Amino acid sequence: MLRRLLLHSRQRRRYSSAAAASVPLSTPTFAVFGANTGVGKTLVSAGLTAALLNSPAPSVSAVAYLKPLQTGYPADSDARFVFSRTPALLRASSSPPRATRLVASCSTLFPSPPVGAEAEPLHKSQEKVVTYGRDGAPEETKLLSCRTLYAWRDPVSPHLAAEREGMAAGDDEVRGFVEQWLLEEGVGKDGEVWKVLETAGGVASPGASGTLQCDLYRPFRLPAILVGDGRLGGISSTLSAYETLLLRGYDVSAVILEDCDLLNDKFLFSYLRNRVHVLALPQIPDDPLDDLTDWFSKSASVFNLLKDALRSFHSKRIERLNSMQRKSKDLLWWPFTQHNLVPQDSVTVIDSRCGENFSAYKIKDNKMMLVPQFDACASWWTQGPDSNLQIELARDMGYAAARYGHVMFPENVHEPALRAAEVLLGGVGKGWASRVYYSDNGSTAIEIALKMAFRKFSLDHGILADGEELIKKERNIQLKVLALNGSYHGDTLGAMEAQAPSAYTSFLQQPWYSGRGLFLDPPTVYIKSATYNISLPQSMPQDPKTSGATCFSSEGEVFCKSRDKSSVADLYLSYIKQQLSEFSVSSNSEHIAALIIEPVIQGAGGMLMIDPLFQRILVSECKSRKIPVIFDEVFTGFWRLGVESASELLGCLPDIACYAKLMTGGIVPLAATLATEEVFESFRSDSKLTALLHGHSYTAHAMGCAAALKAVQWYQDPSTNLNLDTNHMKLKELWDGTLVKQLSSLPNVKRVVSIGTLCAIELKAEGSDAGYASLYASCLVQLLRKEDDIYVRPLGNVIYLMCGPCTARDSCSRQLFKVHRRLCDLN
Amino acid sequence: MLRRLLLHSRQRRRYSSAAAASVPLSTPTFAVFGANTGVGKTLVSAGLTAALLNSPAPSVSAVAYLKPLQTGYPADSDARFVFSRTPALLRASSSPPRATRLVASCSTLFPSPPVGAEAEPLHKSQEKVVTYGRDGAPEETKLLSCRTLYAWRDPVSPHLAAEREGMAAGDDEVRGFVEQWLLEEGVGKDGEVWKVLETAGGVASPGASGTLQCDLYRPFRLPAILVGDGRLGGISSTLSAYETLLLRGYDVSAVILEDCDLLNDKFLFSYLRNRVHVLALPQIPDDPLDDLTDWFSKSASVFNLLKDALRSFHSKRIERLNSMQRKSKDLLWWPFTQHNLVPQDSVTVIDSRCGENFSAYKIKDNKMMLVPQFDACASWWTQGPDSNLQIELARDMGYAAARYGHVMFPENVHEPALRAAEVLLGGVGKGWASRVYYSDNGSTAIEIALKMAFRKFSLDHGILADGEELIKKERNIQLKVLALNGSYHGDTLGAMEAQAPSAYTSFLQQPWYSGRGLFLDPPTVYIKSATYNISLPQSMPQDPKTSGATCFSSEGEVFCKSRDKSSVADLYLSYIKQQLSEFSVSSNSEHIAALIIEPVIQGAGGMLMIDPLFQRILVSECKSRKIPVIFDEVFTGFWRLGVESASELLGCLPDIACYAKLMTGGIVPLAATLATEEVFESFRSDSKLTALLHGHSYTAHAMGCAAALKAVQWYQDPSTNLNLDTNHMKLKELWDGTLVKQLSSLPNVKRVVSIGTLCAIELKAEGSDAGYASLYASCLVQLLRKEDDIYVRPLGNVIYLMCGPCTARDSCSRQLFKVHRRLCDLN
Repeated sequence: MLRRLLLHSRQRRRYSSAAAASVPLSTPTFAVFGANTGVGKTLVSAGLTAALLNSPAPSVSAVAYLKPLQTGYPADSDARFVFSRTPALLRASSSPPRATRLVASCSTLFPSPPVGAEAEPLHKSQEKVVTYGRDGAPEETKLLSCRTLYAWRDPVSPHLAAEREGMAAGDDEVRGFVEQWLLEEGVGKDGEVWKVLETAGGVASPGASGTLQCDLYRPFRLPAILVGDGRLGGISSTLSAYETLLLRGYDVSAVILEDCDLLNDKFLFSYLRNRVHVLALPQIPDDPLDDLTDWFSKSASVFNLLKDALRSFHSKRIERLNSMQRKSKDLLWWPFTQHNLVPQDSVTVIDSRCGENFSAYKIKDNKMMLVPQFDACASWWTQGPDSNLQIELARDMGYAAARYGHVMFPENVHEPALRAAEVLLGGVGKGWASRVYYSDNGSTAIEIALKMAFRKFSLDHGILADGEELIKKERNIQLKVLALNGSYHGDTLGAMEAQAPSAYTSFLQQPWYSGRGLFLDPPTVYIKSATYNISLPQSMPQDPKTSGATCFSSEGEVFCKSRDKSSVADLYLSYIKQQLSEFSVSSNSEHIAALIIEPVIQGAGGMLMIDPLFQRILVSECKSRKIPVIFDEVFTGFWRLGVESASELLGCLPDIACYAKLMTGGIVPLAATLATEEVFESFRSDSKLTALLHGHSYTAHAMGCAAALKAVQWYQDPSTNLNLDTNHMKLKELWDGTLVKQLSSLPNVKRVVSIGTLCAIELKAEGSDAGYASLYASCLVQLLRKEDDIYVRPLGNVIYLMCGPCTARDSCSRQLFKVHRRLCDLN
Repeated sequence: MLRRLLLHSRQRRRYSSAAAASVPLSTPTFAVFGANTGVGKTLVSAGLTAALLNSPAPSVSAVAYLKPLQTGYPADSDARFVFSRTPALLRASSSPPRATRLVASCSTLFPSPPVGAEAEPLHKSQEKVVTYGRDGAPEETKLLSCRTLYAWRDPVSPHLAAEREGMAAGDDEVRGFVEQWLLEEGVGKDGEVWKVLETAGGVASPGASGTLQCDLYRPFRLPAILVGDGRLGGISSTLSAYETLLLRGYDVSAVILEDCDLLNDKFLFSYLRNRVHVLALPQIPDDPLDDLTDWFSKSASVFNLLKDALRSFHSKRIERLNSMQRKSKDLLWWPFTQHNLVPQDSVTVIDSRCGENFSAYKIKDNKMMLVPQFDACASWWTQGPDSNLQIELARDMGYAAARYGHVMFPENVHEPALRAAEVLLGGVGKGWASRVYYSDNGSTAIEIALKMAFRKFSLDHGILADGEELIKKERNIQLKVLALNGSYHGDTLGAMEAQAPSAYTSFLQQPWYSGRGLFLDPPTVYIKSATYNISLPQSMPQDPKTSGATCFSSEGEVFCKSRDKSSVADLYLSYIKQQLSEFSVSSNSEHIAALIIEPVIQGAGGMLMIDPLFQRILVSECKSRKIPVIFDEVFTGFWRLGVESASELLGCLPDIACYAKLMTGGIVPLAATLATEEVFESFRSDSKLTALLHGHSYTAHAMGCAAALKAVQWYQDPSTNLNLDTNHMKLKELWDGTLVKQLSSLPNVKRVVSIGTLCAIELKAEGSDAGYASLYASCLVQLLRKEDDIYVRPLGNVIYLMCGPCTARDSCSRQLFKVHRRLCDLN
């Protein structure tokens, strides 16, 4: 029955994402990792199992042991060892509890298929019942379940055995079974249920697919018991294994190792002081005929200490997780959050992330669980890594920190800053940019871009005299930007001044905001009822001629350059010219000194797609007037919209552009402002005073640059980014086109924008429901978060799904399907 | 002779910093590390040595082999093995070069002293001359020098042997000898000289002092040859060892391992593809009687490949280092830098950092070198780590990246953000703050602080009506800050507006700057001629009564609270009151809505110490007027001034304070704005619109918070921060008081400010020499950088030394001594 269930699940789980895994926390569960092979992992598993089942109070009523991957089978079977030795250990226990019945079972799910003359499958399920403790009728029954998932004959690494014996075990499949094992109810009603998973070989030994043990089980992030190495050289292998586990984000709950008279345990105890318990086991007899009875008896007290250490580890973990909602409400001050509107129990406790998924701590059906949640807002649009890239980045971060820490930047150069600059200029900056100015985030990158643009403009237009002494010609000259309503560029004052007035810029929020721009109303594009529509702003004269040119059947048509000759193009151009001339008439001392736009998509403004034709004409008009053009690609850069730079979609180039968010793979803050050589030249002279005097302490910090280098190259490389359509250097369709069109036709959907890694859906809402704090959207959001395990965060009435450039397409489809289903239900 | 030299150096180097080491790059030098003990490191060393000496073109004329730590001696001696086997290998070589003479030597510097009956020291120096290659008179002479530094009898880990045999080998001592070995001239005139250093045991095996191999040799950061493990489990130990090396910032140039028929090399080749060369050696005979002649002969081609891989690695490294100055000039745009004033050859190429020191690439006396430079500007005041903390942080960074990457923050909580908040509120925020608002850098932290203060002020003063509908009462109300001339708070516009006009705020730099503050002239404190003096600003009425109260003999007197009752205190108070009343008379619609100060030291303003009495009175006056008080502790926080928070020095508390820089140990950007609960309350309501709508994508990013957690605790802990005077919870004197006073008495020194980790010296300069671009300071800076290996960066005429909270005091003394010497010379 179990097997049928599992086989069924095997089918079902074929497409499951590597990163999604549920872990119940009511059952203390630990993973036994080895510093090397042959260090005694199974002895530890058996000793720990016996100590647990012997535990007087709190009583442990069941232990489930799992060996997912076994080689050398059936001669070697770690599950059978635990199954066969535990009863003996319990009986031999020096402190027998009351008379107890133990029901023990041992099974192997997928033994290697018979070869040649063998008729019998290797698989044999066993069960036995023993009593131990005091004499007399058993007062309680305990359970021990020992299971092997996959077992191969050859006593070699699973990846070799799997290949030689023709029985593969894919990562998703193995993880599926492990998850199922984790989710199984313990049968113990009157005591705790514990689970022990024993890995194969050392921490970085390959599994059947070649994935390393530490990576294979990473989605569960079970606390690790590291079985160290007591032999000569064992300090090194134990510490290295420990570091490999840390580099995967594991918590190591205890290190336990054989004492081979080399005092390795003493050294490790001292080295790992205040971090990890270190326990030493008596020396293991060399003699293969020794049945280890004496050894186990001498080791019993150590295993009791191990058990206590693990129990304390587990209860501290739970206690901490349970306290985090309250403490966060007490101590933290969240950005963009009205704390009064966040009930304590709605705070999401994020225990870890694995690729695109959070692992969130939840009480679900009265049970403590770690639940995977698809991070559909890509953590404020920063996230690029799948679980593979995350591990790569972790390793690079450790390396960069160890090699450089941070080193100051002006007049200096270091490899990550230089290499990242090369990659940026050869990627998003290709064909136009020649300089990289690093800073910390999108907002600072914008402030820098504005300073660049103003200098360039001032020199080009005679406001500053060129040469040695730069002077401001007129005292009352005011520089302004040309920008679009609905734009957003960051929350520092300079970036705010470049955006149109909104709730974010009110006196309440920023008394110093004045809005230093001419803000135009842009035409937008959206999908409704499976058609791409252009919505012209009311401020634009509606010409009947243009009405036919505002409906398209595909994205391609919207972006097609042939539209440059359409009547809409004329309309846009005359609107822009009129606005600019009205501005210059109304003000003598004010100059439009920069154009700043988010190309194609206004993110924070509500995921609005701006008609690319309009932006193209705007750019062209500004260039002809020698107004420097800034692209704010903080949101749109690095494949967010399916191409590396949104300027490829627009078909025109900026003078200055800002990048951040996805640039580092979404791991640490870093921003870059790229500029043309002409812009750079406007800061050159022989005076320090004309230099761009703007900087931040961590400018070009090595870790950020190293992350950018890895991430940007990872996205670009078809061998790591399987979503790349290398013929066209753009991403394949991530959000299923048919489903998107269906969504756009739902009556409760006002519009859909789907491009690249983004799929945004504006809900129809009326009256008081409209605006930032839409209740309807909130309701949908709660359902998606709680029932569908999708972590969405709405922008008013807009909910959106966002993935990374490398997110598996079937994962995208699954999320979109869930949203579609919810929207249908809500109709 | 060598030994005497070395002994001399042994004495001299006792106090040398762990982090400073020179490495010549003209001599390719590699470190042989092992994935475990017994994997064949010495076989690789010998095979490589032979391959190098056999190399036809370019010819290698000498190889120096060093085994710093040897145990099991004299039975085991890796140096002797290389010494004795290489000639045989050369003679057996299948492609003999021309007739060659090899002069080989073998020596041990410190053999374990004789015990008991032994009279003979274990040490024996050997030399032999052999010829090989074609018959006939040798056409050239090659050298092989094999050395052991320390040799112990017991075949155990060096840390045990050292203890048991009573011969210690301190880290600095070992490093001193290694550095000397590295710096020794190769004797080869006609060919390359190569060096090979063989470590002991595995990568993380303890050395004699207990320091791990990977940490012991870290200051040299020699490219590593990792000898992998071909046995069962060897994939895991090899990859873990590789990761341990990465976590110390090493570059692994090649992995080489025995092929034990388990295909470990194939797996590693595939796993490490595009990163590291992986080479497989034939299986090593088990038989201890086998003299390995056959094995070496079968391995010769592999060692040739290894040699080629290393040569290519080395030449690429040099090529890259040589290109970096030019490329940086072409691609980068440095902050605060006039590119025209930076000649290409003055760009500092930073290869790595180790604790307080850069390792900079230089051509010195026509030789390519990596030279340690004390980072005396603490990389824009960010740096806290010594080399130990740096490694800890690297490990934590890898862990945090692997566990969390980045997860978005609003309405969420994760462990590093919560723990860091707890530690901040229990440290710098103790006694006043109850909320932590995270952002990315000092500048954003200030913008947030201003928004907080303005809201609090507006509510307290009826500008915004409390309750549901918050409205701005009067349209033309202008909020301003009270601040000090010379202040600096960051480069984003909001932060700039809060500082007084300067070259940085000109139209040229930021056309949008207007300076929204009332800026007062503060009195300053400085040391001159061994006396603490207070300099009153000209704008302050000079009362003859106060003249006696402006001279002190110690820092303690300056900070003494009894000054609150002095006549200077009266003077300050009346000055402040007068300024405030003049302001309110002159403007009806303008309000002073916040006080913002850098407590005690104005950093960017030129390391000015403001009279703490003045700031204390200012704070008190603002508090009495219900003007929120902001402390900008971005520079002063976290022990920069010898105490955790500069508010301890002032003896008063803010309502809001900003932290960044040192907070993360100087490794990644992160900032925090701390606030009282009253400030937090002014944002609470039932409307989202009253929330603080300011945020950055990476707010509370896990890596930053994890770094802050580690760093802040590290500084506070007397077991990790040996500079802590735990009685007074302040740092011991880091800059020798006597020397500081001597400095302050030099005729070319105008003033000195020495407090905590900072020692600033303003040079006397006249006429055109004054101001930001002082030539005199430049000259001194060049000398300190080039001759004294101190990386200083002046602030106008001010040069300063800055260390971390944990920097060894003798290291501080050494730097200060050098500066003193230079200043005397320049007099």
